[in-house]
Amino acid sequence: MNTFGRELRITTFGESHGKAIGVVIDGVPAGLELTEEDIKRELERRMFCHIPVLNPRCEPEEVEILSGVKEGYTQGTPIAVVIWNRRVISSYYEELWMKPRPGHADFAYYLKYGRHYDHRGGGRASGRTTAAVVAAGAVAKKMLALAGAEVAGHIVELGGVEINASYTYEDVKKSWGRPLPVVDQQALDKMLEKIREAAMRGDSIGGGVEVWAVGVPPGLGEPHFGKIKADIAAAAFSIPGAIALDWGMGRALAKMWGSEANDPITVANGRPTLATNKIGGVLGGITVGTPIYFRAWFKPTPSVRKPQQTVDLAKMEPTTIEFKGRYDVSIVPKALVALEAITAVALADHLLRAGLIRRDKPLGR
Amino acid sequence: MNTFGRELRITTFGESHGKAIGVVIDGVPAGLELTEEDIKRELERRMFCHIPVLNPRCEPEEVEILSGVKEGYTQGTPIAVVIWNRRVISSYYEELWMKPRPGHADFAYYLKYGRHYDHRGGGRASGRTTAAVVAAGAVAKKMLALAGAEVAGHIVELGGVEINASYTYEDVKKSWGRPLPVVDQQALDKMLEKIREAAMRGDSIGGGVEVWAVGVPPGLGEPHFGKIKADIAAAAFSIPGAIALDWGMGRALAKMWGSEANDPITVANGRPTLATNKIGGVLGGITVGTPIYFRAWFKPTPSVRKPQQTVDLAKMEPTTIEFKGRYDVSIVPKALVALEAITAVALADHLLRAGLIRRDKPLGR
Amino acid sequence: MNTFGRELRITTFGESHGKAIGVVIDGVPAGLELTEEDIKRELERRMFCHIPVLNPRCEPEEVEILSGVKEGYTQGTPIAVVIWNRRVISSYYEELWMKPRPGHADFAYYLKYGRHYDHRGGGRASGRTTAAVVAAGAVAKKMLALAGAEVAGHIVELGGVEINASYTYEDVKKSWGRPLPVVDQQALDKMLEKIREAAMRGDSIGGGVEVWAVGVPPGLGEPHFGKIKADIAAAAFSIPGAIALDWGMGRALAKMWGSEANDPITVANGRPTLATNKIGGVLGGITVGTPIYFRAWFKPTPSVRKPQQTVDLAKMEPTTIEFKGRYDVSIVPKALVALEAITAVALADHLLRAGLIRRDKPLGR
Amino acid sequence: MNTFGRELRITTFGESHGKAIGVVIDGVPAGLELTEEDIKRELERRMFCHIPVLNPRCEPEEVEILSGVKEGYTQGTPIAVVIWNRRVISSYYEELWMKPRPGHADFAYYLKYGRHYDHRGGGRASGRTTAAVVAAGAVAKKMLALAGAEVAGHIVELGGVEINASYTYEDVKKSWGRPLPVVDQQALDKMLEKIREAAMRGDSIGGGVEVWAVGVPPGLGEPHFGKIKADIAAAAFSIPGAIALDWGMGRALAKMWGSEANDPITVANGRPTLATNKIGGVLGGITVGTPIYFRAWFKPTPSVRKPQQTVDLAKMEPTTIEFKGRYDVSIVPKALVALEAITAVALADHLLRAGLIRRDKPLGR
Repeated sequence: MNTFGRELRITTFGESHGKAIGVVIDGVPAGLELTEEDIKRELERRMFCHIPVLNPRCEPEEVEILSGVKEGYTQGTPIAVVIWNRRVISSYYEELWMKPRPGHADFAYYLKYGRHYDHRGGGRASGRTTAAVVAAGAVAKKMLALAGAEVAGHIVELGGVEINASYTYEDVKKSWGRPLPVVDQQALDKMLEKIREAAMRGDSIGGGVEVWAVGVPPGLGEPHFGKIKADIAAAAFSIPGAIALDWGMGRALAKMWGSEANDPITVANGRPTLATNKIGGVLGGITVGTPIYFRAWFKPTPSVRKPQQTVDLAKMEPTTIEFKGRYDVSIVPKALVALEAITAVALADHLLRAGLIRRDKPLGR
Repeated sequence: MNTFGRELRITTFGESHGKAIGVVIDGVPAGLELTEEDIKRELERRMFCHIPVLNPRCEPEEVEILSGVKEGYTQGTPIAVVIWNRRVISSYYEELWMKPRPGHADFAYYLKYGRHYDHRGGGRASGRTTAAVVAAGAVAKKMLALAGAEVAGHIVELGGVEINASYTYEDVKKSWGRPLPVVDQQALDKMLEKIREAAMRGDSIGGGVEVWAVGVPPGLGEPHFGKIKADIAAAAFSIPGAIALDWGMGRALAKMWGSEANDPITVANGRPTLATNKIGGVLGGITVGTPIYFRAWFKPTPSVRKPQQTVDLAKMEPTTIEFKGRYDVSIVPKALVALEAITAVALADHLLRAGLIRRDKPLGR
Repeated sequence: MNTFGRELRITTFGESHGKAIGVVIDGVPAGLELTEEDIKRELERRMFCHIPVLNPRCEPEEVEILSGVKEGYTQGTPIAVVIWNRRVISSYYEELWMKPRPGHADFAYYLKYGRHYDHRGGGRASGRTTAAVVAAGAVAKKMLALAGAEVAGHIVELGGVEINASYTYEDVKKSWGRPLPVVDQQALDKMLEKIREAAMRGDSIGGGVEVWAVGVPPGLGEPHFGKIKADIAAAAFSIPGAIALDWGMGRALAKMWGSEANDPITVANGRPTLATNKIGGVLGGITVGTPIYFRAWFKPTPSVRKPQQTVDLAKMEPTTIEFKGRYDVSIVPKALVALEAITAVALADHLLRAGLIRRDKPLGR
Repeated sequence: MNTFGRELRITTFGESHGKAIGVVIDGVPAGLELTEEDIKRELERRMFCHIPVLNPRCEPEEVEILSGVKEGYTQGTPIAVVIWNRRVISSYYEELWMKPRPGHADFAYYLKYGRHYDHRGGGRASGRTTAAVVAAGAVAKKMLALAGAEVAGHIVELGGVEINASYTYEDVKKSWGRPLPVVDQQALDKMLEKIREAAMRGDSIGGGVEVWAVGVPPGLGEPHFGKIKADIAAAAFSIPGAIALDWGMGRALAKMWGSEANDPITVANGRPTLATNKIGGVLGGITVGTPIYFRAWFKPTPSVRKPQQTVDLAKMEPTTIEFKGRYDVSIVPKALVALEAITAVALADHLLRAGLIRRDKPLGR
């Protein structure tokens, strides 16, 4: 099942070291401005080439839109986006063939797909596949803009270092001016130190991110099984390495008395709204108009240089493996951009489900 | 969207104080033994009548199977289960009309559905609706048994009290012999104390649960968007009050070095498997044969007796409200049973998707 | 798979001689006026009690709405409708057990579901199940009315007798004032004669119907796989006995030159439209604003009194069977009402898909 | 909605004169032999280059598999197939911009998508898009072969000329040795004559085809809304120009007495089966093991050289248009191959739904 969404449907394809990865984006109304540049811009946000150990495979993406766009506007037909794989170096992976990396999907893929799985670069299970999601997110973000909504996120934990500062959504957006999107400069310095340490150790680190969606209109979300929280949770756990999710203030709420945890309701500009927003913009699975925010955690990259215990599946006997290929010391920064993107897709899908964007005619007619 | 699942599809309906709640269970093969008693048994597990403040509305459920079952066996046709609502006392709710309870879905439902929403007892957003999910879970658990798999869970945190003990899956199952399914007797005592305190304060408490699925065959789960983790996460966040999820060792993994977090691979009984199971039975969204386990946290019940700030939507001015109705001091125990159920549904769905249960002919032919 | 539709989803359940049949209607916006009477009214249209051999099981339907409606308006939550089965006489069917009726789904159900299939009255495969579809149609027709659209049909062939008259959509609606909805009085007389003859012979007859949808806005329908023609064709062939479909002028178009078959385009009231409507309101799967019309044919009722060759599945040897139960001499009149209903569901689904009816707030806010 | 199928899902994309058309094929198990040649072979079957007026755009297709295949075997991951558009001549279409061709989807696309629609070559509505379906069919046919099933079809009517001969399934397959797949040599000669006449007149012709599926196991198909007939009907009407469908003996059955129409049931090789097969292999939407066969009719190609009445949408005034581009005198032969393909996809989907092909492990393990 490589399709996500009901009215806005994205179907991804591609292996890390295959010819290309890509996505077909279906359900976009006609008349939305879109160019390959729009997609490249989002893809660049996930590169972090200025911190080489985060992305040794740093390369400008070659993006090609094969369909669905005419003269800079969407046609209303499916948008096929191909991101060509270039400069792949598969030699590192020869040793890994039949020797799955601990912690990597390699092992599960072996069980399900056997020898037919293209393990090179992690194949279909590679973090690289999130580039296709980010491409779809570029389109979804433009759809959200039609409703006055936007999505942005930042890193809240890396290698055990947690941010410790109060911040606003504006701070979150500003943080992208830094080497890593972190609102707390002190924490950022420690995180960068952790990255260097991990690289030196030939090891990897995990962490956590927070994504905000602001300006989302109230009334989106479908109880019982199309709740905003449920759809975004499914989206988040589709990203490689996702291991935990906190909605709003998350488990901190679980430790409060109900009378503390509840957000009081008040009147603002003649409209009822929440006086606080501990719950993160959603009640009963339905948006109430206050900002959506949630946190997701990702485990460390499974590929590390240290010797690890695995099995030679050909001989079916224990062995050890030391990964010699290029690897990202942490997938957290890329995962953040992917999480922004898939969140935008999930919310744009709900804009369509609720009928806030019409599709019986082109935009603006 | 009140349907969950692709090959095993459950469609729920019903409001808390309406005539009935229920579920249509579609996709079950012909020839599965099933009676109303099987469903009642699961529904009883969520009653906890021996702790009245957890379920003031304690009543034996009146369950009626309207279709899909013949002489104690499923027909292969949709199974419609109705759970009649009896002894509902709606008078408490009159005051709440147009005065949404803080923290409750009432407010979101008002925004989306307006005056047409049946707010009595929380209407469609009531925890009561999880009874329909539990009924479906009773069927799903029987399907899992066909593949030698089973699901069981326990409470790991309540009112801020966390368990502090090592335990096995057997301990988890045994814990159901206690007043609450808690593997740590000391923690249980403190939890029961917290429940009493909350009741006295007219307040409510939240907590966390852990669900295990054991015996699930390897090779289930569909990258990129039908991952086991993603489907179960969506399921978990469809339960009222769900606020956080940790898969396997969850965010603890995010703080480890990759070399620590990775589960080594070894050979057992001539088969490759994980030497440890920090990851909770799933890699790359695909089951590997080791036990699945994850934790979910739930916020406190929004309904409390303490006065809370809300808005009179008719006059559109601030007011306060004190809930006088029956309420569960904590939804955590019921949420646990619902989470077991929806997890069973999600896994049984994947058994069908993967073709482990055939449906071109009845079971056992 | 007992669910139809994407945004308006109906999930049917029930066996002919079980406790009840019913449907869960999901996706309806809040604020639509709806009562049990509205549903009963549509169900009565399929009774034709004034021609007893068309419906020996003539009985007023006992309809109960279990959820989704409050004080005469939809809540926006799933609407569960139960139609109780009363006065069923199953004794006729004892002989049929293990002796499938030729032409009936009995035999296919035996292959797929084995002895677990409730064959009484045709069980799940009975034409009775279309009552659930008609109930859903009652709701869908009200949604169409919101967009100024309506659906109505008539009988164009019965027992080999075809209508031979020109008529308008108004004539189609007026024809419901007759014993059977037939626009051609002479043909109607012959049809009624055929019905009498079939009853005397203990045999059955088939026929054809035509359904119109008028006022459907342009721009509905989704190439490549959500075309209006495709969705309605799927709907039509879900009705028991459906055997053929002609869209617009159907196969007559296949015999014309392209220059004859094409509908010229013209300007009317400053808007472009078709000068003729041979194509039946849809081009490329998308509505163009002209009336939709199509014909569907149904085979004769398989149950007949004449001895027919079948197999004793217990002994696995040939035998003959004479059906002694109540049977409809023709299912065509009931099938027409079911086809109207499912067409309304398919079109209302597309109104939601295209965003012509919003669901982030109740109707009329 | 450009996705078809539930377990085998195909998602098509591309415009006739865009960069490429293509399809993502998702749900195929790992270990199926597949090469680009397999797909080209099926694409060649739809070329009919030996009858130039049927395909003036005759060109060898440039097929590229971007993902999902490794060393000649499927990986179990989505298979992205791109068919590059070459040698497109769009100049013919300049005049058509804002002057929709009568009978063509152009007009409907203008209403729904406005000026953003790429009308060149018919854009997304072009018959060319069926090449993507045929590519998917090449994979689906291989999946059917795993279950011992196969699909093949022939032309039964063209330009009003109908075949008049009795034939077997073997004859249907043999007919592909002729200029057009027609089992009746005399009818074929007349059809070829009609094609020449139509070309001379600058006009076009329609016709009908019949598709067979043989070896399909019993027990496939899901009442109430996943019936084999319904899914294939939806598939058939997704092909441009589809206008009518007859299942089995189709409307001829509607004219018979029930006692004539019913297929007697008998015993063969110790198994119950139908003595005749008027119904075309499906009862109650479920396969019974006898051959599936059905007929579909297609209207003439809308593009013709004769002047036709249309509207200048810029000036919103009547005008006439004479199409000067390359056009297929009849789309029927290509439509037949597309119908074979989409039928194979629908049936392979049901093999997966019913669990006849497992996907928790690679084929053959």
